[in-house]
Amino acid sequence: MSDPDFKVREAMIHRIVGGQGFMKLVGAVIDHVSPGHCHMSVTKRPELLQQFGMFHGGVTAFLIDNATTTAAGTMMPEGKTCLTAEYKLNFLSPAVGERLICKARVIKPGRALSIVAADVYCLTDGKEKHTATALATISIIDGATPEPGK
Amino acid sequence: MSDPDFKVREAMIHRIVGGQGFMKLVGAVIDHVSPGHCHMSVTKRPELLQQFGMFHGGVTAFLIDNATTTAAGTMMPEGKTCLTAEYKLNFLSPAVGERLICKARVIKPGRALSIVAADVYCLTDGKEKHTATALATISIIDGATPEPGK
Amino acid sequence: MSDPDFKVREAMIHRIVGGQGFMKLVGAVIDHVSPGHCHMSVTKRPELLQQFGMFHGGVTAFLIDNATTTAAGTMMPEGKTCLTAEYKLNFLSPAVGERLICKARVIKPGRALSIVAADVYCLTDGKEKHTATALATISIIDGATPEPGK
Amino acid sequence: MSDPDFKVREAMIHRIVGGQGFMKLVGAVIDHVSPGHCHMSVTKRPELLQQFGMFHGGVTAFLIDNATTTAAGTMMPEGKTCLTAEYKLNFLSPAVGERLICKARVIKPGRALSIVAADVYCLTDGKEKHTATALATISIIDGATPEPGK
Repeated sequence: MSDPDFKVREAMIHRIVGGQGFMKLVGAVIDHVSPGHCHMSVTKRPELLQQFGMFHGGVTAFLIDNATTTAAGTMMPEGKTCLTAEYKLNFLSPAVGERLICKARVIKPGRALSIVAADVYCLTDGKEKHTATALATISIIDGATPEPGK
Repeated sequence: MSDPDFKVREAMIHRIVGGQGFMKLVGAVIDHVSPGHCHMSVTKRPELLQQFGMFHGGVTAFLIDNATTTAAGTMMPEGKTCLTAEYKLNFLSPAVGERLICKARVIKPGRALSIVAADVYCLTDGKEKHTATALATISIIDGATPEPGK
Repeated sequence: MSDPDFKVREAMIHRIVGGQGFMKLVGAVIDHVSPGHCHMSVTKRPELLQQFGMFHGGVTAFLIDNATTTAAGTMMPEGKTCLTAEYKLNFLSPAVGERLICKARVIKPGRALSIVAADVYCLTDGKEKHTATALATISIIDGATPEPGK
Repeated sequence: MSDPDFKVREAMIHRIVGGQGFMKLVGAVIDHVSPGHCHMSVTKRPELLQQFGMFHGGVTAFLIDNATTTAAGTMMPEGKTCLTAEYKLNFLSPAVGERLICKARVIKPGRALSIVAADVYCLTDGKEKHTATALATISIIDGATPEPGK
């Protein structure tokens, strides 16, 4: 994909993914998009935590879900759509910090399936702690919208 | 665990898990708790959807994260705490419907690790459609609170 | 698929899967094939064990790999081939027994991806103990043979 | 662990893991062991293949199972034993080549659980092709031998 074409793709990602209802409810932002990469993050606030004051595991999972699919989307051919097929995540340490950051990178782009890895970090005083790691399979399907009745 | 003891456990689960900031932000409710089982659900609203009008994959993942850990918590010995170690989820069909329901059941309770399965359904006109399935490993650790600085 | 057509499919599975070099090295047999289902097993012998006298985890994984893909193969359209995309397995208890049996069942057949679950049991004196559980994603691709140079 | 202590650990790994019945049946060798790392491999022969002439997925899974657990074993405290709790693997490309090599590295060592990643490569004419990637959770338990009757 040429550089101007990627700018169009990037703008579309910001508009579509950034416009998701759940992105806005969680308050997640897309920090970085480049071919094969997507970083997303959220800032700590009480609504994102669990009972011990850590970021809820569901917030980590949401960032992984969205960042891996978006990373796959940066490399898909025109006229295709990405749908998360499956992922697995391991929690590595308590998600304590001011900011939760997910960095996804495509390991293997494919015509039908792309494999994407992600790592999640907690940021405190500018220092990143590794809190989760994940491996995802993303389906590349035809068309712009999956049939909702499927 | 005797029946009165389980009532105490159940009340604690409703108070602690139901009181999580992220549970309230998402608007999830605990529908059912019994030894080895936990059901949680959310009702459709725009803030829980992605760009195609389906429940966001992150909502499915959050319900799985919380319901599997809570199901493990129904069977853990006194003085212990449950922490999600890892899980894997597969999406089976588009999450379209009025309500998204996660049903988690302990497959193998353990002293250090409990293995929990979960299935997620979309409810439309009283009919359930299977939209995701998951397998989780939950750590059973000492104490009521993990050290946040770990 | 009609009953006579399935008989053809079943015979092909026994010939192709049963004829794999690794199936024969391990000594695994296909115990049962029906639409959406495949059971495979091995009998205990020293070459299949690890240092504690249990069936090696790799034997469990091999049965899961092969039985889930074959179960998906029982439901795929004519002219298609199944390839394992990914799977996750949890060990539940030590794999001690006379026989190790894997039972795979299709949860959701699909045109491009089929989702298959599997459970593994150890058989001792006719009694089954649940030793592992798994969740697999199988790719359904065109043609009878993938290009080996891909 | 001091360097001489690690030499003892390394020798024990070669003796115990290298002596597994299934290691010898498959013909796998331990190529490298260092703190947090383990590499294992097999050379192509017909008994390790599936119907398309590729290394069987079960061989890839076996190398991942054994190399991840052994990598965790390089970092565990004295008097402990490692047992595979679970893993997930993604196949990335057909496993065609002269040699199949698994490289496992500990991402997060722990007192009760260690998280280990692994990558599998096919070697042809000295060139490595990435064929699978995996994420594993290894239990660190007391004692030298798990009770087989558990």
